[in-house]
Amino acid sequence: MITTDICIVGAGPVGLFAVFEAGLLKMRCHLIDVLPQVGGQLSEIYPQKPIYDIPGYPEINAQELVTRLMEQIKPFHPGFTLGERVETVDRQDDGSLIVKTNGQTAVSCQVLVIAGGLGCFEPRKPDIDRLIEFEGKGVAYMVKDPETFRNRQVVLAGGGDSALDWAIYLANIAARVTLIHRGNTFRGTPDTAEKVFELAKAGDIDLILQSNVTGLDGRENLEVVSVQGQQQALTLLPADHFIPLFGLSPKLGPIANWGLNMDKSAIEVNTTDFSTNVARIYAIGDINTYPGKLKLILCGFHEAALMAQGAFKYVYPDQKLSFKYTTVYGVPEF
Amino acid sequence: MITTDICIVGAGPVGLFAVFEAGLLKMRCHLIDVLPQVGGQLSEIYPQKPIYDIPGYPEINAQELVTRLMEQIKPFHPGFTLGERVETVDRQDDGSLIVKTNGQTAVSCQVLVIAGGLGCFEPRKPDIDRLIEFEGKGVAYMVKDPETFRNRQVVLAGGGDSALDWAIYLANIAARVTLIHRGNTFRGTPDTAEKVFELAKAGDIDLILQSNVTGLDGRENLEVVSVQGQQQALTLLPADHFIPLFGLSPKLGPIANWGLNMDKSAIEVNTTDFSTNVARIYAIGDINTYPGKLKLILCGFHEAALMAQGAFKYVYPDQKLSFKYTTVYGVPEF
Repeated sequence: MITTDICIVGAGPVGLFAVFEAGLLKMRCHLIDVLPQVGGQLSEIYPQKPIYDIPGYPEINAQELVTRLMEQIKPFHPGFTLGERVETVDRQDDGSLIVKTNGQTAVSCQVLVIAGGLGCFEPRKPDIDRLIEFEGKGVAYMVKDPETFRNRQVVLAGGGDSALDWAIYLANIAARVTLIHRGNTFRGTPDTAEKVFELAKAGDIDLILQSNVTGLDGRENLEVVSVQGQQQALTLLPADHFIPLFGLSPKLGPIANWGLNMDKSAIEVNTTDFSTNVARIYAIGDINTYPGKLKLILCGFHEAALMAQGAFKYVYPDQKLSFKYTTVYGVPEF
Repeated sequence: MITTDICIVGAGPVGLFAVFEAGLLKMRCHLIDVLPQVGGQLSEIYPQKPIYDIPGYPEINAQELVTRLMEQIKPFHPGFTLGERVETVDRQDDGSLIVKTNGQTAVSCQVLVIAGGLGCFEPRKPDIDRLIEFEGKGVAYMVKDPETFRNRQVVLAGGGDSALDWAIYLANIAARVTLIHRGNTFRGTPDTAEKVFELAKAGDIDLILQSNVTGLDGRENLEVVSVQGQQQALTLLPADHFIPLFGLSPKLGPIANWGLNMDKSAIEVNTTDFSTNVARIYAIGDINTYPGKLKLILCGFHEAALMAQGAFKYVYPDQKLSFKYTTVYGVPEF
């Protein structure tokens, strides 16, 4: 069991900055994110895109902002559980909470902060028979640890950057990589697409274009992937792993079951401290709503600052909160 | 008469960023500040201090943040009236406003945004006979244009960085610079203090320590400054200018008379769009108050963003506001 002051669900920019604001008040944080890396949408959806509306940055690359935020919160040594989805929240007799993930992680905390952005990103699942049945038995929707695929037969499907990047990366690790794409051009970065074509020409990966995966087979685990060419016969590929990479779609996930007041798929909060209707649960960033709400990163930063003031009373019930400026006192590391 | 969409009182970091948020919605801004330069407290009080709590900047020098904000708002070509204090606001029949300063500047605008920080900074005035009488006739409390002092006899008083910096700067411009300080060590940056002692040794400025200015004399304009040494007789210095530099103290100033609901010296706003109780007048940054309010620059940035959404209806009464992300649409210059 991990014990912390504040458990933050969502390690996007707002969740990360919340560590800083909590840290200034000497509260420790543990972050959980369903994605395998920090940064939320910035890292997952548009890492190389420039952002123009971060105050003080006329332009900053999304991934660079994540890097800077990670540096900014370093003095406060946050914990991270990545690639796991928060499933349940249980209240203890003393009011504190225990948060559990689908990966057996349990976090005991005084305060829970939902900084879940658009919700947890669920992989878009193609409509293929027995897909769900083979989840965890060969079918995966993201690459958490590339070593899992060492010397294995891997079939990837998709035409975007994820599919291209992983085809290139896994070419050196897997016994065999096959990339299936329904088109014959890629949506991904031209440079990356070219590299994939080169690898295919050199025989380092198999590239099957204008084709779709139509079936999966195996006894206990996945063994065979069926590929239907648009103008060809069916191909049966031996496969230990099938990774469809068709992007992510946001889903609120289990948070919807925690008794929080919702307005459509957003969590209602009050603007004094961004607390929800449930004691000790706060919501900041794109996942919350209130009159005037704008889904801007800079608004989430503000919400994180006020949240920390509100959370303080649960973490230090006997202490009076005194507000200090970092310009005067600096950042007291712990 | 200057005509603009939004008149912003206060050119500190929050006032500056408001130009960006307004600009994204195609609203033009004109800023007025009583200080002779942009940046508010950052530039005036602690330009060389590092700030640690700007999200995405683990550390940034205060003046550097101002520079970056100026760069960020450049595509929107804001106008500036610096070194003047807003005195009156008059409402026109169509609801728009005319803002007038103590320097004869008049700005016609649809919306007025008060981003006044701690209020306008009033110079701390030493208790010297006839000081007020000679204001504008030799007595000044800040250096707006150093050229005013070319080939003139200038007496400075003070022991902080402003006094030291201006003594060094004006040494090359004025006919004679005399710096009076009541102590014999300086509160300013050690490097700067050392430079002042060197200039005095070289005879490039006159340094009178452990002394106070006790009187001013002249017919129409200032002619003589009386200096009383703590252990010496009275000295009479011929002087065209006397500039006491004893820091600034915040005053709300004429804003207090505009019919705005106040809580102590802060303007009450609603958190939906940071509007005040007076139509078309908004307040953002340190000068406003609401439940949960924190006087942080990052909170002012958020307030600026929501303010712009609210102001839009006055600037474009016939248009529907559609919210666009800069990550998708970039920053459309005008």
